Amino acid sequence: MKQRSPGLEALREYTRPVPRLAVPGSHSALQILLGAREEGLEAILVATRAQFEAIYSRFPWLYTRVVLLDSWKELATRRVVSELRGLETILVPHGSLVEYVGPDNLLDLELPMLGNRFLLPIEASWEEKMRLIEEAGIPTPRRIRSPGEATGPVIVKLPGAKGGRGYRIALPGELEHVLSEIEKLGYKRDEVIIQEFLVGVRLYAHYFASPVMGRVELLGMDQRLESNIDGLARLPPGIASRLGLEPSFTVVANTPMVARESLLAKILRYGDAFAEAVERRTGYPMTGPFSLEGVVTDDLEYRVFEFSGRIVAGTNVYTGQQTPYAALYWEEPMYMGRRIARELRLAAERRQLEKIIT
Amino acid sequence: MKQRSPGLEALREYTRPVPRLAVPGSHSALQILLGAREEGLEAILVATRAQFEAIYSRFPWLYTRVVLLDSWKELATRRVVSELRGLETILVPHGSLVEYVGPDNLLDLELPMLGNRFLLPIEASWEEKMRLIEEAGIPTPRRIRSPGEATGPVIVKLPGAKGGRGYRIALPGELEHVLSEIEKLGYKRDEVIIQEFLVGVRLYAHYFASPVMGRVELLGMDQRLESNIDGLARLPPGIASRLGLEPSFTVVANTPMVARESLLAKILRYGDAFAEAVERRTGYPMTGPFSLEGVVTDDLEYRVFEFSGRIVAGTNVYTGQQTPYAALYWEEPMYMGRRIARELRLAAERRQLEKIIT
Amino acid sequence: MKQRSPGLEALREYTRPVPRLAVPGSHSALQILLGAREEGLEAILVATRAQFEAIYSRFPWLYTRVVLLDSWKELATRRVVSELRGLETILVPHGSLVEYVGPDNLLDLELPMLGNRFLLPIEASWEEKMRLIEEAGIPTPRRIRSPGEATGPVIVKLPGAKGGRGYRIALPGELEHVLSEIEKLGYKRDEVIIQEFLVGVRLYAHYFASPVMGRVELLGMDQRLESNIDGLARLPPGIASRLGLEPSFTVVANTPMVARESLLAKILRYGDAFAEAVERRTGYPMTGPFSLEGVVTDDLEYRVFEFSGRIVAGTNVYTGQQTPYAALYWEEPMYMGRRIARELRLAAERRQLEKIIT
Repeated sequence: MKQRSPGLEALREYTRPVPRLAVPGSHSALQILLGAREEGLEAILVATRAQFEAIYSRFPWLYTRVVLLDSWKELATRRVVSELRGLETILVPHGSLVEYVGPDNLLDLELPMLGNRFLLPIEASWEEKMRLIEEAGIPTPRRIRSPGEATGPVIVKLPGAKGGRGYRIALPGELEHVLSEIEKLGYKRDEVIIQEFLVGVRLYAHYFASPVMGRVELLGMDQRLESNIDGLARLPPGIASRLGLEPSFTVVANTPMVARESLLAKILRYGDAFAEAVERRTGYPMTGPFSLEGVVTDDLEYRVFEFSGRIVAGTNVYTGQQTPYAALYWEEPMYMGRRIARELRLAAERRQLEKIIT
Repeated sequence: MKQRSPGLEALREYTRPVPRLAVPGSHSALQILLGAREEGLEAILVATRAQFEAIYSRFPWLYTRVVLLDSWKELATRRVVSELRGLETILVPHGSLVEYVGPDNLLDLELPMLGNRFLLPIEASWEEKMRLIEEAGIPTPRRIRSPGEATGPVIVKLPGAKGGRGYRIALPGELEHVLSEIEKLGYKRDEVIIQEFLVGVRLYAHYFASPVMGRVELLGMDQRLESNIDGLARLPPGIASRLGLEPSFTVVANTPMVARESLLAKILRYGDAFAEAVERRTGYPMTGPFSLEGVVTDDLEYRVFEFSGRIVAGTNVYTGQQTPYAALYWEEPMYMGRRIARELRLAAERRQLEKIIT
Repeated sequence: MKQRSPGLEALREYTRPVPRLAVPGSHSALQILLGAREEGLEAILVATRAQFEAIYSRFPWLYTRVVLLDSWKELATRRVVSELRGLETILVPHGSLVEYVGPDNLLDLELPMLGNRFLLPIEASWEEKMRLIEEAGIPTPRRIRSPGEATGPVIVKLPGAKGGRGYRIALPGELEHVLSEIEKLGYKRDEVIIQEFLVGVRLYAHYFASPVMGRVELLGMDQRLESNIDGLARLPPGIASRLGLEPSFTVVANTPMVARESLLAKILRYGDAFAEAVERRTGYPMTGPFSLEGVVTDDLEYRVFEFSGRIVAGTNVYTGQQTPYAALYWEEPMYMGRRIARELRLAAERRQLEKIIT
């Protein structure tokens, strides 16, 4: 059942040959702004006063206008939406925006949006999210439905895109206790997900689904640095265990990496399969950036524990640079922020904007 | 005693002013293909049907022709060799090719090959391999000849380039048990090597031996991410030890790094020394990419536990990019794949191809 | 109280429209030489014979002249200073130079120096160093004044820039013992610093204070790889603790990273605040490269445990490349070595050299 798209309806009013980007000031805004500039598109920065002053006011050459908000919730108000539509902007959403504005508000936002907005409610539910990965035929970690099912270490994840904050690792015997602690924080059991904790190399693959080029491009990969777990792991032997520190998984930074070339067979296939599954499920094509996030185990399986339906912050490792994978598709430096602007520019030139927005 | 080189003999038949590259589709093929393209050389992709369809068919602009194989063993058949000679190609070998086709088959292959093919039998034997590093005067980890000699942790490595699969770490008291387990897998004791396990920072240095420029260039460095060991290392305290998981060392990915500048004194010297030792031992110069793989201990010694006589996959971290070391030699982006093509092009222009192939 | 600057006095004698750089051959010299070359400035390499032969003699195209020393102490002699003044050079100092020549000798050196030389005595004392960070309003780890104050793991750091050599981590009960061991090595208790050991993601931020552009630029970040601690952390469970190896923190290598974008609010502000605190304390502006070195904890606080008043070696990860942060300020690749040369060139063109040297 194909839903109506408020973004496509809003797009019909636009008359400029080349649209402007509306870039929410957070997450990966700097590379998106830079990419727009390099592709000759105008970018409108939408930011809270606090973040504008602290970060974006230092880079005035990266945008042509700024729409200031007192709080992120304002983004969904008639006033701001109307201003952004008046400027004929296409919104480039990212994980922080989803967290700040809320998936429901974004789903109904009457503003053209790069990508497939119908992924928003799917991502908001662990149940739906993992089902979509499975529908794509992509291997996932074993799902634990009740504490009794756990046979090895598990990870308990909270709902929403919180950059890993509040995630917990537990052994089977500790799981019931961990769940009751999480309940005390106000979460319901069916909001969290319990997954087998896979031991291997974490790999966050960055894709761009391009209707204009008719392909899903692999543009990069990264590994996350998380606090405090990456600090705990590096403590001298004997000290970590005596500290009694609870491990935490707040994403703090990212580092670049490349995969063994033979793994690309799976990584490329999963990218295609994910895009196809999204189209089957939502009735709209997958467009723009997305990410598959998983672990490569020592049998060289890539098992995906999560996805992001839009740009991930790990792509920031390549801001302004060529990436080792983008180089296979593009001669000029093509990081994710620029790839977004390139697609918008090409789609506008070919009058295919309705193919990449919802 | 200098052996005859089947590649040099095959080269005599070639008449094109600029040769073509034959690139086996695996390992680091994408950057080699890209490098050929950037240097204006034609590349012939040689790939199994399965890998072609899964990976290389997505990048048809990276090669001008593809030679499809049902299995890698076919590469050494008269039909394929004859086709590749008819196309006047120079084969660019890599670790996966050695593993798939076998060092003996490659040694006898009647096809010009970039690099020194007489390293192949040396690399196939741990005994010969480590002796060559020692002949170069490069410090190595202590070799353990029998379980009784171990005084600290050791690593037991299987023969062949398996990307670290099956390697085992053991403390002295466990070594006898580990060796008997490895024997049960069908390996003989004199095929494996036991080395002191050095605790420090792993450093895989990427070199290019250039007869055309008359120098050994340091083009980059990387660190390997291995599964499951890198996952085990990051488990919260207390969990890893209770899991009872056997550590494994399958190379999954690579990350870029640079060394403390003062370490370059050793790293550069060892590169030269290795190239000289190869020429002394085989009678042919070291040419093309190679790698020294070791650990920097806290006394700033670089001890080399292995080498690769051809391109290592860690160079993939710089595909299409300038590297922090190549920038010292070359103004344009010079990753290993492009460096290969550059050398072939320069050698062809100067009619010195016989200097860089065997 | 503003001290006289021997460098500014020496500068008055200079008559060339564009000065030359004097680059001490160690630490980050290669990228500084490369940067000078890319900006069209002449660079004079100053190096010991040993390091020149081992490293810099391989890259003669990176400098126009070399001043050879038998030992680093010679740099402060009248002969060498006079030669470097005769060549109208501006010295680009780095951590190795400070360690080799000594902060007092550098402070008095009658040679123009990029940056604020009055930071040298501050950096030489842990007491002064940490006070400056606190004066800037930047959060720091808790300082432990006596063993009884420790409540969790602490790190004990030796005086001087030794690249982390000799640093020790201890739990409260072990601290007295560790301190007495350090005393046996000849250090006094008031020369070392004891800091709360923060568990999180280490982040070394690279800044450039530019009077010419009127801003402090964030040009990059890195993480250090230290021996043997990074090797210890990766040992299989159970092995590290049974080895009884003392952890050590010798910096061996660096890897690139980027921070979560929202952290930039703090990272950018601390860069400004540090530069302002330096000017308040010394009476001279902060100019040229500097670094803040800290840990991001899981509450997303960035606590700074150290600074470097000049270029840090971690900037080497970007030699010859665009960095993910420099891309926000500069269209052309702008790594720290080139940024130095750019500032010198711009300052010379605008007759503002006295603004950036002391």
